[in-house]
Amino acid sequence: MTSQELTEQILKKQSFLCVGLDTDLDKIPTYLLSEKDPVFSFNKAIIDATHQYCVAYKPNIAFYEAIGVDGWKALKKTIEYLHAEYPDLYTIADAKRGDIGNTSRMYAKAFFEDLGFDSITVAPYMGKDSVEPFLEFTNKHTILLALTSNEGAFDFQTLKTGDKELYKKVIETSKNWQNSENLMYVVGATKAEYLAEIRKIIPENFLLVPGVGAQGGSLEEVCKYGMTKNVGLLINSSRKIIYASDSSNFAEIAGAKAEAMQNQMASELEKL
Amino acid sequence: MTSQELTEQILKKQSFLCVGLDTDLDKIPTYLLSEKDPVFSFNKAIIDATHQYCVAYKPNIAFYEAIGVDGWKALKKTIEYLHAEYPDLYTIADAKRGDIGNTSRMYAKAFFEDLGFDSITVAPYMGKDSVEPFLEFTNKHTILLALTSNEGAFDFQTLKTGDKELYKKVIETSKNWQNSENLMYVVGATKAEYLAEIRKIIPENFLLVPGVGAQGGSLEEVCKYGMTKNVGLLINSSRKIIYASDSSNFAEIAGAKAEAMQNQMASELEKL
Repeated sequence: MTSQELTEQILKKQSFLCVGLDTDLDKIPTYLLSEKDPVFSFNKAIIDATHQYCVAYKPNIAFYEAIGVDGWKALKKTIEYLHAEYPDLYTIADAKRGDIGNTSRMYAKAFFEDLGFDSITVAPYMGKDSVEPFLEFTNKHTILLALTSNEGAFDFQTLKTGDKELYKKVIETSKNWQNSENLMYVVGATKAEYLAEIRKIIPENFLLVPGVGAQGGSLEEVCKYGMTKNVGLLINSSRKIIYASDSSNFAEIAGAKAEAMQNQMASELEKL
Repeated sequence: MTSQELTEQILKKQSFLCVGLDTDLDKIPTYLLSEKDPVFSFNKAIIDATHQYCVAYKPNIAFYEAIGVDGWKALKKTIEYLHAEYPDLYTIADAKRGDIGNTSRMYAKAFFEDLGFDSITVAPYMGKDSVEPFLEFTNKHTILLALTSNEGAFDFQTLKTGDKELYKKVIETSKNWQNSENLMYVVGATKAEYLAEIRKIIPENFLLVPGVGAQGGSLEEVCKYGMTKNVGLLINSSRKIIYASDSSNFAEIAGAKAEAMQNQMASELEKL
C-alpha cells in the first residue's frame, strides 16, 4: 500500500487508528485457552470487532516468538486472515529489526514476502546499510525508530550529537538513504512537544505514534504538532483496546474502545 | 553457562571460535534441498564436523525467519540437537532485539526459555528498560551491540555525544544497569584499534567479535587489543567456514577451516 492509498483509507474511514495485536496467552480471556489456536482466535475476534474503526493492525512479533512455532503459525494465520477478509487494512510487523546488509535482506524477505506485511519497524543503530535492504521493496514502508515512548528513550536518543539530539540526527541522515521516500518514523506520543521539531525535518512522512493511552500521551496534542495536510499519522493503541475486558464479550468491548478513539480522530480530521 | 565456565571451555579446547549458523537455502549444497529439513541437515553436518574446534554456535535468526514456520522449526531442532549432543557448547541467538520493557521480556522468554539459548544479541537504541528484562535471567548473557562491523557503524555509533563517541557512551551507561555483570558486547574486528579504548571502559566483559575473515579483520590484532586474562573474546566466523565449499564434502572442508582457526587461536592463547 502506498502512503497516498493509506491517506485515502484514513479519510474514508475517518480514522488513523492502528490496533496493536500484542497477543499474550497470560492476558487473553482464559476460556480461549482450550481452543486449538487461542492466539489466532483472539486476534480474529478483535479484528472482526474493530476493523471498521481502524486503518491498520500491528502485531508485535515478540508476543508470537515467545510461544515458538505455534506463535509463528498464529502470526501467519492472522496476516492471511487480514489479507483475505480485510485487504484494505494496512499491516505493520512491529519487529524492530536491523542487521548487516545481507542479514537485513533476510528479515525483509521474511516480513515483506513470506508474511506479506505492508511495513516493518526497524532500529537505526547499525546505520544505512542495515536499513536500505528494507527500503528496496516497492510499495512497502520501513518504519524507523526515532524517538520511542519508553523511559529508556532518554538514555541515548536525546543525547546531543554535535548541534542536535541523536534522534534528529537519525531522521536527518535517513533522508539521504536510497529510497528514503519509503520511510516512516516511530515517535512516541508521550513526547508530543517534540513533534513540532520533528515536523521541521520531515514535513510529510507518516509517523507511527505509540503511547497514546496506556503510556499516557494525548491524542489532541499529537495531532496539534504532528498532523500534516495528508494526515501523516498512525496512532497505535494496543492494551487499552485489546485487553479492555477479559470477559466473554471482550471483542465487543474492544470494538467500543476502538470506536471511541475513531470518534475522537474524526473530530481531529475536521480540523484539516 | 557462566562467563567462568565459558573461559574454562576455551582453555580446555584451546579455541574461542564461534561458528555462525547463517544457513541460507540459496547457499547450501543443492543436493540437500531434497531432504525433509535441509536447514537442519546442513546445520547438523556443520556442527558434527566443527564442534571440536569451537566453543560456541551463533544462528542468526534472520535466516530462519526468512523461511517462516519451517525456519523456526529448524532453529528449534538445531538448538535441541546442540543441547542433546554437545551440551558444553555455548549458544548465541543473534537476534538483535530490543523493545519496550514488557515486550523485551517476551523476547527474553522466547530465546532463553522456549529455545534455551545461553545468550542473545540486543540493540541499545531504546535504552535501559529495553535491555534490563534480558539481564534478569540467571546464567544467561545479553550481548549488547556496541560497535558493529558494517559500514553503517559510522553513521551513528561513532558520533561524538559530549566528550565521547556514542558506542562508548552505550558501554559506559550499560555498566550501571541492573545485573550488568550479565553483559557482553559486540565489537567488530574491522575496528581492532578501537578495542584498546573499549578495554579501558570494560576490562573484563566478554566481547563477541564478528568480522574476522569475510569482513576483513585480523585475529592477531583483535587479540592484541582485546584479550583479557580470562580470554574475554569470542571470535565469530560464519560464511568463511560454513560456505567454504558447496560440494558433498562441505562439512569436512568446514571442519578443516574451523581447525585452522582453532590452531591460530591456540597460538594466541599461549601468549596469555
